[in-house]
Amino acid sequence: MIIQLKANPDEAIVTALTKRLEATPATVIRIKNHMAIPELSHVDLTPAEAANVTEVIEKTPAAVLGSRLFQPEDTIIELPHSIIGGKGHFTMMAGPCSVESEAHLRKMAKVAREGGATILRGGAYKPRTSPYSFQGLGEAGLKYLREAADENGMDVITEVMDEDHVDLIAKYTDVFQIGARNMQNFSLLKAVGKTRVPVALKRGMAGSIDDLLNASEYIAAGGNHQIMLLERGVRTFDNKYTRNTFDLAAVPVLQKLTHYPVIVDPSHAVGVWDLVTPMAHAGVASGASGMIVEIHDDPEHAFSDGPQALKPDTYKKMTKEVFEMRRLMDSWEA
Amino acid sequence: MIIQLKANPDEAIVTALTKRLEATPATVIRIKNHMAIPELSHVDLTPAEAANVTEVIEKTPAAVLGSRLFQPEDTIIELPHSIIGGKGHFTMMAGPCSVESEAHLRKMAKVAREGGATILRGGAYKPRTSPYSFQGLGEAGLKYLREAADENGMDVITEVMDEDHVDLIAKYTDVFQIGARNMQNFSLLKAVGKTRVPVALKRGMAGSIDDLLNASEYIAAGGNHQIMLLERGVRTFDNKYTRNTFDLAAVPVLQKLTHYPVIVDPSHAVGVWDLVTPMAHAGVASGASGMIVEIHDDPEHAFSDGPQALKPDTYKKMTKEVFEMRRLMDSWEA
Amino acid sequence: MIIQLKANPDEAIVTALTKRLEATPATVIRIKNHMAIPELSHVDLTPAEAANVTEVIEKTPAAVLGSRLFQPEDTIIELPHSIIGGKGHFTMMAGPCSVESEAHLRKMAKVAREGGATILRGGAYKPRTSPYSFQGLGEAGLKYLREAADENGMDVITEVMDEDHVDLIAKYTDVFQIGARNMQNFSLLKAVGKTRVPVALKRGMAGSIDDLLNASEYIAAGGNHQIMLLERGVRTFDNKYTRNTFDLAAVPVLQKLTHYPVIVDPSHAVGVWDLVTPMAHAGVASGASGMIVEIHDDPEHAFSDGPQALKPDTYKKMTKEVFEMRRLMDSWEA
Amino acid sequence: MIIQLKANPDEAIVTALTKRLEATPATVIRIKNHMAIPELSHVDLTPAEAANVTEVIEKTPAAVLGSRLFQPEDTIIELPHSIIGGKGHFTMMAGPCSVESEAHLRKMAKVAREGGATILRGGAYKPRTSPYSFQGLGEAGLKYLREAADENGMDVITEVMDEDHVDLIAKYTDVFQIGARNMQNFSLLKAVGKTRVPVALKRGMAGSIDDLLNASEYIAAGGNHQIMLLERGVRTFDNKYTRNTFDLAAVPVLQKLTHYPVIVDPSHAVGVWDLVTPMAHAGVASGASGMIVEIHDDPEHAFSDGPQALKPDTYKKMTKEVFEMRRLMDSWEA
Repeated sequence: MIIQLKANPDEAIVTALTKRLEATPATVIRIKNHMAIPELSHVDLTPAEAANVTEVIEKTPAAVLGSRLFQPEDTIIELPHSIIGGKGHFTMMAGPCSVESEAHLRKMAKVAREGGATILRGGAYKPRTSPYSFQGLGEAGLKYLREAADENGMDVITEVMDEDHVDLIAKYTDVFQIGARNMQNFSLLKAVGKTRVPVALKRGMAGSIDDLLNASEYIAAGGNHQIMLLERGVRTFDNKYTRNTFDLAAVPVLQKLTHYPVIVDPSHAVGVWDLVTPMAHAGVASGASGMIVEIHDDPEHAFSDGPQALKPDTYKKMTKEVFEMRRLMDSWEA
Repeated sequence: MIIQLKANPDEAIVTALTKRLEATPATVIRIKNHMAIPELSHVDLTPAEAANVTEVIEKTPAAVLGSRLFQPEDTIIELPHSIIGGKGHFTMMAGPCSVESEAHLRKMAKVAREGGATILRGGAYKPRTSPYSFQGLGEAGLKYLREAADENGMDVITEVMDEDHVDLIAKYTDVFQIGARNMQNFSLLKAVGKTRVPVALKRGMAGSIDDLLNASEYIAAGGNHQIMLLERGVRTFDNKYTRNTFDLAAVPVLQKLTHYPVIVDPSHAVGVWDLVTPMAHAGVASGASGMIVEIHDDPEHAFSDGPQALKPDTYKKMTKEVFEMRRLMDSWEA
Repeated sequence: MIIQLKANPDEAIVTALTKRLEATPATVIRIKNHMAIPELSHVDLTPAEAANVTEVIEKTPAAVLGSRLFQPEDTIIELPHSIIGGKGHFTMMAGPCSVESEAHLRKMAKVAREGGATILRGGAYKPRTSPYSFQGLGEAGLKYLREAADENGMDVITEVMDEDHVDLIAKYTDVFQIGARNMQNFSLLKAVGKTRVPVALKRGMAGSIDDLLNASEYIAAGGNHQIMLLERGVRTFDNKYTRNTFDLAAVPVLQKLTHYPVIVDPSHAVGVWDLVTPMAHAGVASGASGMIVEIHDDPEHAFSDGPQALKPDTYKKMTKEVFEMRRLMDSWEA
Repeated sequence: MIIQLKANPDEAIVTALTKRLEATPATVIRIKNHMAIPELSHVDLTPAEAANVTEVIEKTPAAVLGSRLFQPEDTIIELPHSIIGGKGHFTMMAGPCSVESEAHLRKMAKVAREGGATILRGGAYKPRTSPYSFQGLGEAGLKYLREAADENGMDVITEVMDEDHVDLIAKYTDVFQIGARNMQNFSLLKAVGKTRVPVALKRGMAGSIDDLLNASEYIAAGGNHQIMLLERGVRTFDNKYTRNTFDLAAVPVLQKLTHYPVIVDPSHAVGVWDLVTPMAHAGVASGASGMIVEIHDDPEHAFSDGPQALKPDTYKKMTKEVFEMRRLMDSWEA
């Protein structure tokens, strides 16, 4: 339920109403002149209360703090080297799937930067389907990421899988990534919600748009509003030639519903390197605020996800084209 | 199984081998220097036969006649006013969902042409989920289509749902459309396969890539090789904000596997007009050879699918952008 | 929209209202004291009309003629040797996937009957994914089916894929089967709807419950009310170990919504013979009115779908158990 | 890769081979006379090694420790009041979705026990889609569970969402439940794998059979082999009338692949109380080792998931029928 207040309402009455609703019990979220009460769909207002209210809407959106209803303007996330969200910004994030060694990561960071990326990706803690697959270098990997990023004037994004790692990883990264498998790991979402480090939340394999928005609300409810949402493909019957089904319509759908930036991940969406470039083109064309891709100079010997990694030259051609496409699109909006 | 023949094989031996295989029984398809035998995966060759064979491959692709293995070059479909497929061509198809009246269609055809479409779409026979929904104007609708297209220098695409209508519709249309619900209506596929009218085959809601290719082979096996494939979204769990999930990765996947042109249909993929423009951008960016979209000057009173129709001005802005994007992409390949 | 009439309404007023609504235009379906108008959701009634109406419901169910709203009692289909639907009847249908030869079918019919089946299944016209796969024996197959069924005191069910075959197949069969791929082949549905031969309509691979009900309405709208609905698995991401996902909850869901009998097909649902028996148990336990299964004495050499066929002994053990389970369930309702 | 050793191999050679493989690096799992090396698919054996090996199989199953290949006999989990798995045991688990209060839980535990359940379910920590929904009573809820179970001679199952809660919850529960949303929360899986408390692992909404088995291996790799797997429905396009699609074929599929007991959860699968009884029938008929269901005496006022809760009388009728069905099935195997 959303209670739309008048301009300059009587705050004493609003406070009393809030207390009354919270006692039912229910959560009351005040955003400017709106009160959102997700658990309720009806309230009987006293005449004094009604005099301060212009409208009561039965349904609350999936994400309250993330909704365009209450904040029409885009969330813009500012990092030392990157701006994510808003008109006129397109952010490229690139790097290897896993951090493999200090030397390799430095090499890849240089390539990423040359292709226009301002954020370096790389997994130090890896969520692997099998417990017997490579699980990441841990803290050493975080150090290599930080150093390689600093050396190239880049920011860092890396995955956090475990609430007990939140503080450690926060020391090294500029952005937390929450992986698809943890989209509804609510303990982890609450943990990153307590920090002030920006969070990139990936959509789960069976995550509906509303599930993703609700998950983002777990972070925002903790006070961390620096959130971006990542579309990386969903799981469908169509999985012979691609790993997932890239749901690009989710980009404009999310942009209608929420003010958070939406980022696309063509690498995980398709899982095969020679489909990444056309899907990167499609991704920027869908209107996303940025892109995250995997690169590797020797994909056959990559520690993880080699088949979907772009080699340096392919990557640089792709990003050049993606930036040109974005500039063309900017010209339409000018 | 594929038997790869030597250059200039002994045709008497090849003919005898063909007869031997056909008697097992099995279908043998000869394409240049390849013999494809879809039902078999193994054959014992005599020394004389082996001397004419360079390689035997166990697996046959889903579409034999449509496969890039045997025909690397693109199929190009030439109509009086349009060229579909091949480098440097991008074909726009537009029109109302249903043919509603002669006057309305003439108006819409003019708009479609002004936006750069060279093919006019419109349904005279409509596949509707409910038997109580509007089922189309029938032959009168076909006449209006032909006249409106001729008046504007356009070709016609319209759906055929019924093998008994094939001859009638062939008198009016330049391209048969086979709808998603009929992708595996094998009797209908065989019927259009006997004509020489180009066929636009839509992917079914649960159609895998291989299902779509196999379905195209029903048409090709009848001798009709003028086929294009349409991606229009598949059915997934994600159906609250969009009608279907637009599977744009299918475009490059199909382009790797088959030489038939691939067309995208953003209107049916999303089902909501304000998502059509971003998905049209994404569609052209994915590398498709063309696009089909629904337009209407008064969507609220459309006889069918009003919510997904673009109004004339939105349509013209969209096509202008799509053609610009295609030109940018052409510049990369030059 | 549903207009609920008073008992003994003024029929002159009802007729006038019907004409008025039909002119909008809309279809008006009168069932006892209900008027269903699927295309409309609102009407302004005159005082005279309103005096004959007890209630107007905005939403029309997916199948009007099939809805429990207007016919609470079960549809019961009576064949010479079988009763399908209603309390206390459970119908077993069995036979090979394809009719392969006269001798083989007679052998299989005997096995089917010994296992308690009263309906013989077998495909004479086969819908095959590839045009190069065995397409069925055609009319010869129909004759073998009729003879083998008669010899064993059984009824026949066989698939019709093509509206031009409806009359021919009607001469041989007791029940038309519409396959999953043709669930929304509306021309075919209309064609069988014009006959008075019972129809078994299979749910499509991406067919929602409402799609299936709407499809059944195409048959019923033609005047053929002898319809049964078949659940045979839907297509999902989970397709490594089973061909489809058997959606058994569809059985009680359909039974709530419609009066048509619901039949389960464990063979196509799983596609692997050793899963058929547990899914046959689950199928009868879900409350279905009957079951259709594939049997073969030599599955490795079956012309189609060998991997899912039960051998005679396995089949007979399974049906014995299924009938025992059904009797146990009957004891709860007594 | 699986290396099948001879009976009584030369252990010195096996140890040396193990070291050699582990140095590649790779994980080597020795189970009786098998060595499983999930990351590798090929090894060149020395003549001395080969003399101790009977066979090398390229592919490793998804769960090594859980595979029937290496342990054909069923895992049987023994709790003070319940036996889960193996022939002749069928375990009923019941209780409210959330622990709501001490008094309410005692009442529900009594009902659960009267219906034949020997394990009491109830959530003290609740994974809710929205952060504003009721999140559970926490440790107080655990105490109520333990007391209500003890009072009725029952065991306890309750969900753990957070690795930091593992020790606390272990003090109160007999079985940890891992919810669907956490199926691939690998940190949590590792944490419960270090305990010796039995774990009930729920299949995720988009979890394939192999994903579920791999997830179970995270637990087993920690040394905790007391695992049961729960089928609770997967997410598909078919979600209007049921919350999920109950994939009952997963029961026999899992039973072929793994020795862990398989439990069904009809309540979450369908999400609507009046479908629970037929799906409970289908669930036991599929051959599951047990069932978990939600009950409530006043579903309309339940703190969570009220619509799917069975009232006490419906629950008792259902369990009586389920046990009768199980006895009938036992008679077939005797």
